[in-house]
Amino acid sequence: MYKLRKQQTLGDVLEKMMSFPVLKIEITVPIEEAYGYYLAEDIVSDSDVPSFDRSPYDGFAVRSEDCMHADSQAPVILMVVDKIGAENICNLQIKQCEAVRIMTGAKIPDGCDAIIKIESTRVFEENGNSYIEIRKSLKPGQNISFQGEDLKQGEKLLCVGSRITTGAVALLATFGYSEIKVYKKPVVGIVATGSELLEITEKLQAGKIRNSNSYMIGAEVIKCGAIARHYGIAQDTKEEIKSVVSKMMNEVDLVITTGGVSVGDFDYVPEVFEELGAEVLCNKIDIRPGSVTTIAHVNERGGKILIGLSGNPSASFVGAVLFAAPLIKKMLGNRQPFLKQVRAVLRENINKIDPITKLVRGVIWEEDCKLHVKPTGLDKSGAVSSIAYATALIILPPQTTGYVVGDVVDILLLESVEGSENFGHTVCGI
Amino acid sequence: MYKLRKQQTLGDVLEKMMSFPVLKIEITVPIEEAYGYYLAEDIVSDSDVPSFDRSPYDGFAVRSEDCMHADSQAPVILMVVDKIGAENICNLQIKQCEAVRIMTGAKIPDGCDAIIKIESTRVFEENGNSYIEIRKSLKPGQNISFQGEDLKQGEKLLCVGSRITTGAVALLATFGYSEIKVYKKPVVGIVATGSELLEITEKLQAGKIRNSNSYMIGAEVIKCGAIARHYGIAQDTKEEIKSVVSKMMNEVDLVITTGGVSVGDFDYVPEVFEELGAEVLCNKIDIRPGSVTTIAHVNERGGKILIGLSGNPSASFVGAVLFAAPLIKKMLGNRQPFLKQVRAVLRENINKIDPITKLVRGVIWEEDCKLHVKPTGLDKSGAVSSIAYATALIILPPQTTGYVVGDVVDILLLESVEGSENFGHTVCGI
Repeated sequence: MYKLRKQQTLGDVLEKMMSFPVLKIEITVPIEEAYGYYLAEDIVSDSDVPSFDRSPYDGFAVRSEDCMHADSQAPVILMVVDKIGAENICNLQIKQCEAVRIMTGAKIPDGCDAIIKIESTRVFEENGNSYIEIRKSLKPGQNISFQGEDLKQGEKLLCVGSRITTGAVALLATFGYSEIKVYKKPVVGIVATGSELLEITEKLQAGKIRNSNSYMIGAEVIKCGAIARHYGIAQDTKEEIKSVVSKMMNEVDLVITTGGVSVGDFDYVPEVFEELGAEVLCNKIDIRPGSVTTIAHVNERGGKILIGLSGNPSASFVGAVLFAAPLIKKMLGNRQPFLKQVRAVLRENINKIDPITKLVRGVIWEEDCKLHVKPTGLDKSGAVSSIAYATALIILPPQTTGYVVGDVVDILLLESVEGSENFGHTVCGI
Repeated sequence: MYKLRKQQTLGDVLEKMMSFPVLKIEITVPIEEAYGYYLAEDIVSDSDVPSFDRSPYDGFAVRSEDCMHADSQAPVILMVVDKIGAENICNLQIKQCEAVRIMTGAKIPDGCDAIIKIESTRVFEENGNSYIEIRKSLKPGQNISFQGEDLKQGEKLLCVGSRITTGAVALLATFGYSEIKVYKKPVVGIVATGSELLEITEKLQAGKIRNSNSYMIGAEVIKCGAIARHYGIAQDTKEEIKSVVSKMMNEVDLVITTGGVSVGDFDYVPEVFEELGAEVLCNKIDIRPGSVTTIAHVNERGGKILIGLSGNPSASFVGAVLFAAPLIKKMLGNRQPFLKQVRAVLRENINKIDPITKLVRGVIWEEDCKLHVKPTGLDKSGAVSSIAYATALIILPPQTTGYVVGDVVDILLLESVEGSENFGHTVCGI
């Protein structure tokens, strides 16, 4: 049985874990595949946007001085001397009382300084010429999208570590980034330890449970944007666990185990980590569930982190989102690797008093512009139902009286794409 | 030039569009790949959870009646008669003053009705036997995870159309779902129309802009969970647009075009849709940007929707998230295909008055449990910068005085994984 059990705070553990450099491999992906990656380069505008003064409407380009006094009593008549689509350039110099039929996006012809929408004109033909009648005045610059009004050339648009969202892709394409530097998806190895575990295809037997943790963690890995590699189930013998963890250390970028980290007689994981040359950073944290989460670091092979999660489904889940996810996100270059933290109004009493920080699975909703939260399902570390329905983790620091309806609580958003750069005082070391 | 321009409300258009049956193909995926899909079957528990009374701790299983009066003055001594790991069964009938060393997750031995944590006992050896000293009383059932307390056999856990989240995967594995029925990812075809468009690898020229919309829409398609197929750029001729749209109708599940839907002389898309046998459902909607979004339906090939988005980047973006996304999500079986709608406090004045509903790109944040929102960047339909930074669309119905700081506004969350079943009065027809 492994003996080191000095309790550490969640903040200290995260800080220690995130302080190690991680393997971040720069790759280039075509823009069609860039969605969901994180930028490995700053994105800078290569031109003004718009890159020329252009028309935001289908209509007519005019000289505002011709139309300055137009109204329904004194309509102005202009002759249409050219017609340009968005891709065309008008090569004429527009003179007094002339106008150009112009499509959305087209360059403003020389001499013109305002656009009137087609709906605001009356168009007519006379002697083979085309004319428009304008019944309202126009100011210089009216209805023109000016060069650089959206973005200036050389402006920094997105910085390293930003998520490539739908909108970011629009920016990248606008500035000619057909290939984008991002960080490679790390490969995360997962093994479940425990002789009580059945494959999910097996029938339940007394004393046995199906291995759900491996698949849950695999999903979390994919959610973070990485690749999950499964190493099955290891029986509770030191030899078997050591053999598979050693193999994983050679084959993957991050090693995750479940089970075998408690104080039971068959809990070999911390010991195995040490025997494989890793330094155990923690194996008792001031949170529940997940207090026995064991994190170790090995210097070999460029430095690798080993995460030993609890075998309890809920503790394993909390460990996966609190510890494994930020590390994976850091490897992906995500500059907001921690779960987004916000505050919400508690809508159900939580009476149970704990001497350490509780992380209660909850559901959030909005009502009257406010965020509300309440616990979901059974709050025991073995409970699996509450994992499936939770959209937040409610952080409840120890206190002597419990929490009541109306209390303001900190919550971590489980389904937010946006994250946080920091966790408490822990600054992401990217 | 296409003439039909009867203005319709956003709600009416969405209702009409979502009323058509869409192609939903059921497939089976292994649990390792199920994350992010939507269920094509209800998930029911095949057993109680826990499936037997078990220990949530490492400790000792005892008979509570032996310990009922234990305290520090009158400690109770029990003899340890067996030791079981999580996978083992104790075959003894536990008698008076006996205890069993038990690991987390193991089945409670016959005769025992309480668990004491290892930390709360003193363990000692005497005459080759092992004993524990207990200094606090235990109640019947204390520290036992009872069979079925988390979930009962036969309970419906997740329903058709639910997103397969990390937590859902845990549930699926727990109940032996190694393969899961989901809906196949639809293939969405994208073509950008417009003779002013350059490939993103091309240098800018006067009067030309790079094709950013195709890539932005491609990212949105991937974000929704589907597959994007690119058909490049079509010049502004009816023949070219017709030829590519016709090809797409044969090859993809949903056709998206950008450009060519306005009232310009080269705007052929609505006409092309009709000539290809589709019924145009709308081409003028009471929203800005995106008012010219053209949606059509064709009966052939099992029924297909054609979506003609504006060529303006912001209008194209709004059209993609408001119209294309819900349709794609419906094809994926997502029972919440619309953007999540919540309310927030406006933190910047929006003075510009519009006669139709404005959809302003904004950023949201939480402060004092409240959601706040303000516009981001330049709010013109050509602006691309605001797309990249927006996390919400602010819905501003027409009014005569503008909006001021402190107003409560409806917003659509752009980055929420969770969606809404309805949009206004529009019920998702899944």
